[in-house]
Amino acid sequence: MAFPWPETGSPLDDVITPMPVIDEDRLAANITRAQAYMNQHGLAFRPHIKTHKIPAVARQQIAAGATGINCQKLTEAEAFADAGFQDILITYNLLGAARIQRLQALNVRLARLQAVADSAVTVDGLAAAFTADRPLTLLVECDTGGGRCGVQTPEAAAELAARIAAAPGLRFGGLLTYPAAGGAARVETFLRDAMALLAARGLDCPVRSNGGSPDLWKAHLVPSATEHRAGTYVYNDRSMVRAGECGHGDLAMHVLATVVSRPTPTRAVLDAGSKALTSDLLGFADHGEIEELPGARIVSLSEEHAVVDLTDCTGPLPGVGARVRVIPNHTCVVSNLFDRMVFHRSGVVTRVEEVAARGTVW
Amino acid sequence: MAFPWPETGSPLDDVITPMPVIDEDRLAANITRAQAYMNQHGLAFRPHIKTHKIPAVARQQIAAGATGINCQKLTEAEAFADAGFQDILITYNLLGAARIQRLQALNVRLARLQAVADSAVTVDGLAAAFTADRPLTLLVECDTGGGRCGVQTPEAAAELAARIAAAPGLRFGGLLTYPAAGGAARVETFLRDAMALLAARGLDCPVRSNGGSPDLWKAHLVPSATEHRAGTYVYNDRSMVRAGECGHGDLAMHVLATVVSRPTPTRAVLDAGSKALTSDLLGFADHGEIEELPGARIVSLSEEHAVVDLTDCTGPLPGVGARVRVIPNHTCVVSNLFDRMVFHRSGVVTRVEEVAARGTVW
Repeated sequence: MAFPWPETGSPLDDVITPMPVIDEDRLAANITRAQAYMNQHGLAFRPHIKTHKIPAVARQQIAAGATGINCQKLTEAEAFADAGFQDILITYNLLGAARIQRLQALNVRLARLQAVADSAVTVDGLAAAFTADRPLTLLVECDTGGGRCGVQTPEAAAELAARIAAAPGLRFGGLLTYPAAGGAARVETFLRDAMALLAARGLDCPVRSNGGSPDLWKAHLVPSATEHRAGTYVYNDRSMVRAGECGHGDLAMHVLATVVSRPTPTRAVLDAGSKALTSDLLGFADHGEIEELPGARIVSLSEEHAVVDLTDCTGPLPGVGARVRVIPNHTCVVSNLFDRMVFHRSGVVTRVEEVAARGTVW
Repeated sequence: MAFPWPETGSPLDDVITPMPVIDEDRLAANITRAQAYMNQHGLAFRPHIKTHKIPAVARQQIAAGATGINCQKLTEAEAFADAGFQDILITYNLLGAARIQRLQALNVRLARLQAVADSAVTVDGLAAAFTADRPLTLLVECDTGGGRCGVQTPEAAAELAARIAAAPGLRFGGLLTYPAAGGAARVETFLRDAMALLAARGLDCPVRSNGGSPDLWKAHLVPSATEHRAGTYVYNDRSMVRAGECGHGDLAMHVLATVVSRPTPTRAVLDAGSKALTSDLLGFADHGEIEELPGARIVSLSEEHAVVDLTDCTGPLPGVGARVRVIPNHTCVVSNLFDRMVFHRSGVVTRVEEVAARGTVW
């Protein structure tokens, strides 16, 4: 039997749960607002598609004025190239013969492809594969306090840039960072210092790419940056509200769920577990917020169930079969679990989109 | 470009990371050992397919002597019915017209279908849809301390069983529970008390289904049970080793990963993040164990990266490009993220299986 995906025009109340649903008006407003801010501050904006993995949503971002898109995985970039996108930045160290061969094919297909490197091993692997007739543009990834990947000092950045520039098959494209939240000053200092060292070596540094949704509205505090990358802003989630980056009315994603059990007066069980909401806590003590049940707490998840403690719930308590909307802690990982996503306007289904880059893990 | 799924006979070293891989010998041994234990104690064994979601693996479980399979979602059951399975138990409260219609279709297709209920709402919804010419068999789900779904007392179980038995389209099939770890005594008491109440009402209770991998080897401590359900035992994971339920040599699943960055002397970054390992901690303080790096700790995950602290690593430190095997905290949720899974024997690829019931969320 075919999966019961809803028809356009049907009520959201008929959508089988659990299902993430996207509010069209909030989505459009989130895209417009972020782009307007970047325009105002003269920053190129490059949305990260990891949050939605849906070409149609990225097309809305491009139509609003985004420069191009940001992918985290080679296979995401391939899925979006298949969908017609021509300007892609892959913010990942790409290693190994199989991956590099695919990167070469992508470099031929796209009008503009950029990747990143933070080590001589990555640079040398790419340098050995790419040639001057179709060179690959590489940015140097810098760790400005995020504590993940990236060279640790401006000196190391300049050193690696020189290594890239010296390879016939590579072009040094600039600097990139994914900073810690609140790290604007440190990013600016790192970029300025690295740019001075690059200038001293005679190396152009056209792109200085900064990133993050948590500091989206502080992107202008890094004047040396030329572009900003962000993903979560497009849907927003509970963590973004907590960070003060958006209001409740900017939450474009909910996970529809049904109360499947009311075993005790203070316990409800939903049909959205860790295989629908994920276990990402992002510092929260519980697993999302339920619009219809203020004060209720999703205290634990098993794979297909959420256990809700109703003790402090201030609204009317739900019966078995009641439908609720859960605000997820983290939207990007929810998208990664579903093959399709339902969009709606005021509770009426507008479209069902395939999550085209889901399951593309390399 | 097609995804580079490995050929049978190729070395595991060529498999692109991140990728969960399954050791055939350990898988077969896990299946044999659990079935032998159940046989020894006269318990029917019904493996839960949520852990692997792969029909070929369930066929191995059936071939070893399993009675049938256990699904958590209607759509899992549909995927396994499509693959030819004829005896399926869905351990979930199934609500709503769309779902019940699909359940009816499944009930016609299968030789034996059982579902569960823990409330009058669920029973009445099913009673209104099923008819005496093709009745649905329902077990009453009992909360014996697990704190999720289930009626709270033996009296409530008997009451709900009578409601089922009174519906022309339903058959009362027995009792089911998913207990808390270490809850054997409580399960036994609950079942015995409920069976006495059922007998007093003249109701047969042919199935008493107990469950859980954490207490797999204690299943015989519930003499009133007729069958046991378990999923995780088939692959095992870090949580099962900690629980003392298996040894290190019984871990059939690893997630292959590559060191993509070595930003500092004590930090390595892997290409397996929360979109490969999930954020399930299951009480651990970190996100899995790395076979090749004893003492190293996966201190944080972002979506496509794992940050590893090498401070206490007692082995040789890995360079960029080094491949490692991660023991995941929780195997069932890893399966849910991948469209395909690679199987191997001693590092040589034996097969690539589609995770057929992944993404089937209702």
